[in-house]
Amino acid sequence: MEIRREKILNVGNEIEPLTYVKVVRKDGLEVSGLVLPLARSDDTIVIKLDNGYNIGIKKENIERIEVLGKYEKKVSHRESKRVERRPGFPLVKIIGTGGTIASKIDYETGAVKPYLSANELIEDIPEIKEIADLETEQLLDILSENMKPKNWERIALEVHKELLRDDVKGIIVAHGTDTMSYTAAAISFAIQELNKPVVFVGAQRSSDRPSSDAAFNLLAATLVAARAPFAEVVITMHGETGDTYAVVHRATRTRKMHSTRRDAFKSICSKPIALVWPWIYELKVIEKDLRKRSNSIPRLLNKFDERAFLVKMFPGMKSDIFDIIKERGYKGIIIEGTGMGHISEDLLSTIRNLIKDGIFVGMTTQCIYGTTNLNVYATGRKLLEVGVTPLGDMLSETALVKLMWVLGNFGDDIEVVKRKMLEPIAGEISSRRTLDLF
Amino acid sequence: MEIRREKILNVGNEIEPLTYVKVVRKDGLEVSGLVLPLARSDDTIVIKLDNGYNIGIKKENIERIEVLGKYEKKVSHRESKRVERRPGFPLVKIIGTGGTIASKIDYETGAVKPYLSANELIEDIPEIKEIADLETEQLLDILSENMKPKNWERIALEVHKELLRDDVKGIIVAHGTDTMSYTAAAISFAIQELNKPVVFVGAQRSSDRPSSDAAFNLLAATLVAARAPFAEVVITMHGETGDTYAVVHRATRTRKMHSTRRDAFKSICSKPIALVWPWIYELKVIEKDLRKRSNSIPRLLNKFDERAFLVKMFPGMKSDIFDIIKERGYKGIIIEGTGMGHISEDLLSTIRNLIKDGIFVGMTTQCIYGTTNLNVYATGRKLLEVGVTPLGDMLSETALVKLMWVLGNFGDDIEVVKRKMLEPIAGEISSRRTLDLF
Repeated sequence: MEIRREKILNVGNEIEPLTYVKVVRKDGLEVSGLVLPLARSDDTIVIKLDNGYNIGIKKENIERIEVLGKYEKKVSHRESKRVERRPGFPLVKIIGTGGTIASKIDYETGAVKPYLSANELIEDIPEIKEIADLETEQLLDILSENMKPKNWERIALEVHKELLRDDVKGIIVAHGTDTMSYTAAAISFAIQELNKPVVFVGAQRSSDRPSSDAAFNLLAATLVAARAPFAEVVITMHGETGDTYAVVHRATRTRKMHSTRRDAFKSICSKPIALVWPWIYELKVIEKDLRKRSNSIPRLLNKFDERAFLVKMFPGMKSDIFDIIKERGYKGIIIEGTGMGHISEDLLSTIRNLIKDGIFVGMTTQCIYGTTNLNVYATGRKLLEVGVTPLGDMLSETALVKLMWVLGNFGDDIEVVKRKMLEPIAGEISSRRTLDLF
Repeated sequence: MEIRREKILNVGNEIEPLTYVKVVRKDGLEVSGLVLPLARSDDTIVIKLDNGYNIGIKKENIERIEVLGKYEKKVSHRESKRVERRPGFPLVKIIGTGGTIASKIDYETGAVKPYLSANELIEDIPEIKEIADLETEQLLDILSENMKPKNWERIALEVHKELLRDDVKGIIVAHGTDTMSYTAAAISFAIQELNKPVVFVGAQRSSDRPSSDAAFNLLAATLVAARAPFAEVVITMHGETGDTYAVVHRATRTRKMHSTRRDAFKSICSKPIALVWPWIYELKVIEKDLRKRSNSIPRLLNKFDERAFLVKMFPGMKSDIFDIIKERGYKGIIIEGTGMGHISEDLLSTIRNLIKDGIFVGMTTQCIYGTTNLNVYATGRKLLEVGVTPLGDMLSETALVKLMWVLGNFGDDIEVVKRKMLEPIAGEISSRRTLDLF
């Protein structure tokens, strides 16, 4: 963008948002940047500095403002979905679904906008060029808290289609972090006999913030999609608060364990699959028990039935929550019990009746870490007697997703549901003791 | 117990349970111990060895069995509730409520029985004599998964009564681990202006198992109750899998984070209050911001209103769960949202109507770690607009307990509930950023 000096404003003048300005403060300090339409009050203007930070300046402290130019929309050649192919470089497909990772603030509207042209990505993260050629596609634009099982079906369909392409080496799904592990678990069940890595990636801070983790995570995800020897659905995110390494987690074993930190994602009762040092293009596989890249034809089983419910146990819980389970036609519930998988005994008869009516009841633990075991205490044995299915070390969130998937693809016969829920499909349940993974 | 050789059984004979025997196997191995009424099948007997382990022996492998004697019940002098007082030693009161910590298997019935006579405790854990004199009371005998808000009221009443005694230096509440943090949080709110430490303690393995943590934890808890300089409600449990140190957690900040490990309890978004090395009688206070021991008269506010509900958000959740909240007369709910505290937008109008009807809606995060923040994303701002109250870094479980407590003691006026929920009462909500505590 060409910057030229247009005019000098007095402080009394209105400063139009989306104008590049130089502000000279009364104390002599000068700052240059873009005036944002974000002023918190009439007596302040907010300027986005070149280093990415926003700064608020009180008008009463301003000596003068020089207008340098107008903000202009990105030109259209940057919107192309695919960079030119280079011989010898693998092709990585990025499927955008919305969320912080693939968005920037649109300064004209103040809204968060998708940010997924291949050229624009590579311009911002030039290191990607060393690894792969990119092709991008904005499939959905949904904040992850609004993601629905119907969207999982759509994402699975699209990922499956791309997996069948010979020229694609690996797939990245850019997703909001809030429900990323739910969606990634869903894709783990919905696509079987995987032939290539499917890498979910997100960002905890948006890419127009200097502290953004978007570039780091995308670079790490690209490395995994292009070079990893395994064919698994994984989540690749920051490994610590700095910018040294990223962690590759098995999708069905991952939980967002912090609301804001960049290293929010953790493998639960499971080792991470791999570590990545993106700035030096290093990838180290840790887990041995992995599906390898192959020429197999992936199978699509992407129906999810929403007649499943997740209930978290608490002291004083009444049976009324279970009444609606039956009334409203639910076909299965996951109970996040206490400890090894317990509920208050006064709820036992309600649970028994649910199961008699053919509704599947699976038990996980609200401890997050560790396994259910209904054989140790009397309450557990009573739960087994009424037909509750303990789900071992399966995460509650993964259990819910799997239940929706089982109901969607195999029907709601309770015996079938029980059998499928306990059958390992995508590393979601383990018979090994994992006491050391805490 | 006098052991004498009564007779030699052939393997074909029925071996009466609760008999001390010597078993000689066909391969020459000899084991001695108590026959338990726990045989898993007709062709096996289970023997409790002197070292505490149980061993199953197939009858077909047994050469012969020698009966050594009969199991006898503990004599009654061990049942006394208080040891003789010694000058110069502080008195610690132990209130038993049930659970693994204070129980042993009763070999006559096979059931788990309370184990809380002062003399018996001191006989099993002689190190306690170096610290304090004990007085014990079996207030309740409830497995912690069956603990109800009504029981919290009873425990609070009893603890409060004991706090008023001049001769008691500190109080231990022995509790099952499943819901210990719920109960301990409840007591934190129910007793204010605390004058002495109230120490919750539990065990992950029962005291008749060699790997039991009961003795270690009880000794650590006794040290805290007798010697800690603070007057706080805390949870004292194993700090690691070995037997070196225990950790003292603030009750409102503690979560059982593993279903089986001995170091299952963790402080969340908060430093532990203290560390304890029980075998060398060492206690080190870490946290500075603590209420000190004093002569203040504790206030009792021990009503809990059960018309509160905890809902964990998940993709595909329907509004029907919220319908019953209103229909069934609930006065408040805690929503465990995703990320910084989000729910799917299609539930917004239902939530708005609940709040219009005077039902409190508080938001926590299912990430466990980190704080809610409804100002960052559009969904959060919409939640604020409809009147949802973000609860900062308060744990979901603590938020539910506090909501029951607020409703019980201050009524259900939504403005009062909002104000009280955000007012720090017992260290349960912090305005400090705690990003490093992860």
